[in-house]
Amino acid sequence: MYRSAITVLDCSIRDGGLMNDSRFPVELVRETFQAISASGVDYCELGYRNNPELLGSSDFGPWRFCDEDKLREATDGVEPRCKIAIMQDAHKAVPDDIIPFDESCVDMIRVATYVKDMDKAIRLANSAMAKGYEATINVMAISHALDRELDEALQQVEEETKVLACYIVDSFGALYSEDIHYYVDKYKKHLKTKEIGIHCHNHQQLAFANTIEAIIKDANYLDGTLFGIGRAAGNCPIELLIGFLKNPKFNLRPLLEIISKRYLKLNGELEWGYQIPYMIAGILNRHPGAAMELMQSDDRSGFVAFYEQMLEEGDAV
Amino acid sequence: MYRSAITVLDCSIRDGGLMNDSRFPVELVRETFQAISASGVDYCELGYRNNPELLGSSDFGPWRFCDEDKLREATDGVEPRCKIAIMQDAHKAVPDDIIPFDESCVDMIRVATYVKDMDKAIRLANSAMAKGYEATINVMAISHALDRELDEALQQVEEETKVLACYIVDSFGALYSEDIHYYVDKYKKHLKTKEIGIHCHNHQQLAFANTIEAIIKDANYLDGTLFGIGRAAGNCPIELLIGFLKNPKFNLRPLLEIISKRYLKLNGELEWGYQIPYMIAGILNRHPGAAMELMQSDDRSGFVAFYEQMLEEGDAV
Repeated sequence: MYRSAITVLDCSIRDGGLMNDSRFPVELVRETFQAISASGVDYCELGYRNNPELLGSSDFGPWRFCDEDKLREATDGVEPRCKIAIMQDAHKAVPDDIIPFDESCVDMIRVATYVKDMDKAIRLANSAMAKGYEATINVMAISHALDRELDEALQQVEEETKVLACYIVDSFGALYSEDIHYYVDKYKKHLKTKEIGIHCHNHQQLAFANTIEAIIKDANYLDGTLFGIGRAAGNCPIELLIGFLKNPKFNLRPLLEIISKRYLKLNGELEWGYQIPYMIAGILNRHPGAAMELMQSDDRSGFVAFYEQMLEEGDAV
Repeated sequence: MYRSAITVLDCSIRDGGLMNDSRFPVELVRETFQAISASGVDYCELGYRNNPELLGSSDFGPWRFCDEDKLREATDGVEPRCKIAIMQDAHKAVPDDIIPFDESCVDMIRVATYVKDMDKAIRLANSAMAKGYEATINVMAISHALDRELDEALQQVEEETKVLACYIVDSFGALYSEDIHYYVDKYKKHLKTKEIGIHCHNHQQLAFANTIEAIIKDANYLDGTLFGIGRAAGNCPIELLIGFLKNPKFNLRPLLEIISKRYLKLNGELEWGYQIPYMIAGILNRHPGAAMELMQSDDRSGFVAFYEQMLEEGDAV
């Protein structure tokens, strides 16, 4: 029994870009867009529209900025064509980074924000919607949010915006099923006129499971990625999600095909996925940055020393 | 808040042995036993005690038979020392394969069975208990069991045995959280005087998540393996389970250490873990045998053809 309100978004290129500074060849992005479109998935997120000055460095590939020319190169003429999403970081983008809707091939702006930057996020989302785009607000690092600040921020989203959805983003892969239930209930309490979204990381191999738990609690906007590509341990594998959902509009085959042709090899190069350092960061509810550094070092299997170091730093935080 | 009734069993060598016909060097088994013992995990399962004649072939390594001499070589003198478990398959073992308790270093006999072989399983478990061993009965392939046959089998376990626990075994990695809730409720209904156990496979990356769901529903016997080693996509990673449980008797460090020293390399050789063919078997609720064959073939990334073949065969079953 499927729920027609369920909306699935693939963020392979956007979140996967955190593993290679968004330096994907345009051919890969186009093939990804073709596969996602053919699978019946609703949206394909092709990167960030961040501001080069606010980003602090221009040393990124094209999918960190998503110029319209580049987006068209990856998507023009693709049939069937799913909707295109791009992401703005609340603290790294300004409203003027978004051109008028009728000059763009983009359908949706997703604004990613920490709770503390919610005012900036609301400004970006409202500006995008005023220009004609769909918009969502995605609350990152939710496992570090203080309850009363999160409550206030969600109430602001409800009262001050018309975004389609507001997402729970488990950036650190730290949440267990009971936490997912807790946050969806909290979102429901504040967001009477918005859908609830879920974006999980796989540090504890719970990304898919927690996405299911959010679905059970009535979250309708679901993020996934091909073979789980994404920062560190990666995201909810979209092939598992589509295998679980019973909506006949979805077709698993184009996803299996592009994983076979492209993403298996890419996984060997970028090495996202479950690894002990990411697991340690996950169980300690910490940013995966230090674990990613360890994985790039010569001492990548020094697990116990890393665990001790993380515990010590945790005490000092 | 921890539950003192929770009992954790490591089955790295036993279930991992399904990836190499139980041919582990005794040094690895001894180091595994040392690490599991040092971590505070309650049991370490070192293999099968199956009958060479019933097994149909003697072409297996030592941990498919677990001779006492071999077990002692791997465990004698280890301090601290957790309890030792071995497994008998109901259809591949006889009571006489188990020697008297006071001549053995084994503490627990786990009898693995399909629902249809429950009479054999009960005979083996009762015989082992009469000799002085602890025993459990583990119901394999539960996602293929017919409800009324499973009900009858569980009622038999309750009435005809004194086993410590009866396990839900998701051999095909096919169950979702709602299925886990369903089966634990069913077990609870029949097994008024037994503990409930859970053994999961990771074909859909749900082994750890489903183990947590079983815990929430009051299952107290929990299986895990180092870095998830086990057949096909493997099992619930015991390091995640110990990271989740709050019982101060457990220590994560010895587990991290042996994964670093031994199991990372072993993973490169035996290649258990999430792969698309296993995922396909999982979502279709099928034995992973065909997927394991594909993974050994030259066409291991022929996912779409494999999916079509599995769908066709499924229609014919």
